[in-house]
Amino acid sequence: MYKYKCIVSYDGHNYMGFQIQEELPTIELEINRALIKLVGKEVKIYPSGRTDRGVHARGQVIHFELENDIPPKGITAGLNAFLPQDIHIESTEYADADFHARFSAKSKEYRYYINIGNYDPLTINYAPFIKNLNIEAMKDAIKLFEGKHDFKGFASSSIDKRKDTVKEIYHTEINELNGYLEFVWIGSGFLKYQIRRMMGLLIEIGRGKEKKEMITYVLEKKDPKISHRSLDGCGLYLMKVNY
Amino acid sequence: MYKYKCIVSYDGHNYMGFQIQEELPTIELEINRALIKLVGKEVKIYPSGRTDRGVHARGQVIHFELENDIPPKGITAGLNAFLPQDIHIESTEYADADFHARFSAKSKEYRYYINIGNYDPLTINYAPFIKNLNIEAMKDAIKLFEGKHDFKGFASSSIDKRKDTVKEIYHTEINELNGYLEFVWIGSGFLKYQIRRMMGLLIEIGRGKEKKEMITYVLEKKDPKISHRSLDGCGLYLMKVNY
Repeated sequence: MYKYKCIVSYDGHNYMGFQIQEELPTIELEINRALIKLVGKEVKIYPSGRTDRGVHARGQVIHFELENDIPPKGITAGLNAFLPQDIHIESTEYADADFHARFSAKSKEYRYYINIGNYDPLTINYAPFIKNLNIEAMKDAIKLFEGKHDFKGFASSSIDKRKDTVKEIYHTEINELNGYLEFVWIGSGFLKYQIRRMMGLLIEIGRGKEKKEMITYVLEKKDPKISHRSLDGCGLYLMKVNY
Repeated sequence: MYKYKCIVSYDGHNYMGFQIQEELPTIELEINRALIKLVGKEVKIYPSGRTDRGVHARGQVIHFELENDIPPKGITAGLNAFLPQDIHIESTEYADADFHARFSAKSKEYRYYINIGNYDPLTINYAPFIKNLNIEAMKDAIKLFEGKHDFKGFASSSIDKRKDTVKEIYHTEINELNGYLEFVWIGSGFLKYQIRRMMGLLIEIGRGKEKKEMITYVLEKKDPKISHRSLDGCGLYLMKVNY
């Protein structure tokens, strides 16, 4: 068997998320279909993680195994020829036999974009519109997420109780671009809904409706039912997976 | 009756064009529905022109008449409350009794964007990807479109024979942005498919497959059947209508 690792970018707006859901439009379904066209049979693909509905990717990683040796450049070109134009294989390389897109990942980088300028119907599916944010308050508060914590309080409330919810956030930053805010999150891994719920609380702090101490409180309480508005998936981008 | 003029922006990617086509998703259908919710009855709207499937707008203009006087700011806020988030009323004002969004228009500005950098699945529905273009050749050639011409050769081949196909292009420019080319077209008006077909020939010139003299030839022949690749509507933006 030959093992391959691909870097994949996609516009999540047109899809119901990564994970296959029968015939609904999903990233996995489209890659599966393209692989069947390329190699003539069904091939199971493994992503670094399943992005939610509407979430975009510039550096998603998948792996899969083929019985026949196809040169990596042929995989990239072949898959791109069959994929819809809003899903794109950036590159393909051979992977070691023990490589696993999910379990071998050492860290991941996500970014979240918010439009703080004028309402724009042309970017609203790529960056939510939120006005009157205290940027300095958010820049101060986001640092409380850094380090090793039990993030259960920021996870989906339906999270499996046996799941290890201790993760480390290595780096955060908030950059002011031209009318947009860019939130950078680099960590060992992120739980389902974690970034969207951390963003939700951060925005409440930016709007002056919560104090930054609430972050510490939620981390200590470890109760996903302490509700915070979860920001929409449309502003979230999986940028890079490090191995 | 009270006459109103609205400036409308929209992401055309999710719509089958401006003009209503029964229950298919169109810009007109969505504005009609929002107006019915706002005023309680059907109101006919008139656009400056009907944008095609996938074409975007940052400055489309519509007019309509209401029996009751609603303040313009109330129309803007009311319609935006009922419209999908990818269609947005930028502003509303009272219009004179003889104002007509289409017939009163003095000139229109369109822009077309092409990605000349790296393939990007996240902008592919907003700017087609075309590599290896000779920008100087296109900057030179586009000037041949300026002035008053019979543009029948660049119109849709199904164009009504009685239609006046003489139009004037006042200004063109090609700007190099960060990895993108911006083509600016300002003219008295444009025929169905005209900009997409002019762009198609311009790109053939940029790729070295046609000479700029072909522009003069098509203008002189006035035959829409002389075929040129029409560029996709997804890169086209109606920016402004001047009255």
